[in-house]
Amino acid sequence: MEVRTERLRLETRGRNQIIDLSEDISAIVRKSGLSEGQATVFAIGSTAGITVIEYEPGLVETDLPALFERLAPYGADYAHHATWGDDNGAAHLRASLLGGSYVVPFQKAKLILGQWQQVVYVDFDTRPRRREIVVQLLGS
Amino acid sequence: MEVRTERLRLETRGRNQIIDLSEDISAIVRKSGLSEGQATVFAIGSTAGITVIEYEPGLVETDLPALFERLAPYGADYAHHATWGDDNGAAHLRASLLGGSYVVPFQKAKLILGQWQQVVYVDFDTRPRRREIVVQLLGS
Amino acid sequence: MEVRTERLRLETRGRNQIIDLSEDISAIVRKSGLSEGQATVFAIGSTAGITVIEYEPGLVETDLPALFERLAPYGADYAHHATWGDDNGAAHLRASLLGGSYVVPFQKAKLILGQWQQVVYVDFDTRPRRREIVVQLLGS
Repeated sequence: MEVRTERLRLETRGRNQIIDLSEDISAIVRKSGLSEGQATVFAIGSTAGITVIEYEPGLVETDLPALFERLAPYGADYAHHATWGDDNGAAHLRASLLGGSYVVPFQKAKLILGQWQQVVYVDFDTRPRRREIVVQLLGS
Repeated sequence: MEVRTERLRLETRGRNQIIDLSEDISAIVRKSGLSEGQATVFAIGSTAGITVIEYEPGLVETDLPALFERLAPYGADYAHHATWGDDNGAAHLRASLLGGSYVVPFQKAKLILGQWQQVVYVDFDTRPRRREIVVQLLGS
Repeated sequence: MEVRTERLRLETRGRNQIIDLSEDISAIVRKSGLSEGQATVFAIGSTAGITVIEYEPGLVETDLPALFERLAPYGADYAHHATWGDDNGAAHLRASLLGGSYVVPFQKAKLILGQWQQVVYVDFDTRPRRREIVVQLLGS
């Protein structure tokens, strides 16, 4: 049993941008030499989350952003804004609710995912950022 | 330290059906011969989730379904429907929000859970399906 | 590769109380002698959750509680109340939605977290309680 800790780097524009990480994570698994175990995908920072979704334009560009806009609208007033003069209170709430850590099992050096199931990074922030994501493998 | 990757199979009817997996996961832990470690419970597919809940009829049959119906109503119009002619946009949104991967620790070959805490599969889809769930153990 | 299973104990007052666990988890990692791996933070019980947030008063005391009050108000009527004569249906729904298991990677015996990212326990219950949280390390 071994542990490998890798990082992915992204340039994001935020505002509910949803980025498919499945191929990057799969590549890390393939190159690791590990056959069976799990990949933990972890978002560094508190204005982005990790989840799975069928990566098609309707859900990714319209439906999931609309859901989060109902839950925590970008234009609303948040106490967080008063603390820092920030404008990204909605991004913090969305990220805390969604969660930023996701564990995906692999077998025969392949992620176990459904055909229409992708692992995605959801950047909720209100400005472009450079982002780091940890992909940590535990397995043998 | 070892890894074991097992699968559970379910026939579901969907529409926020909530199925208690605790006993099936416990049985996998018991039979594994492992004493201490974690079980990752992972839903294959993007219209179902995994969480914990007190498994009693009020929450399971009424309250949690009502919460998700407020968040993403089945009858609403979703861009996902235009992409595929599907009718399960609400199921996708609910599943992405809830998440479909849950890590439960075990010790002395028993899941560490509260007395009123069960691990459940929530099938959000709009039609009956055959489902697979991965239960992956890491431990010794 | 080794596994260590530790517990944190808290006295909570509930009602969306948000408690920063980052330093306690970091101390468990430091004392473990492990250098690289993951910490699974797991809430025992079904009326509390685990997430990450920027731990500042605006988000912690006002914004996140307000979000959950919109999603599942404490004063509403829940079928759960009829089952047990309880008054904490909202707490159960909030906890199931947020989730109570969070995996955080560590390297060089330090949790990998952003500068403004803390791991928190969110106690949703409606009365003071004694709580246990599992912190399980897998690593080497």
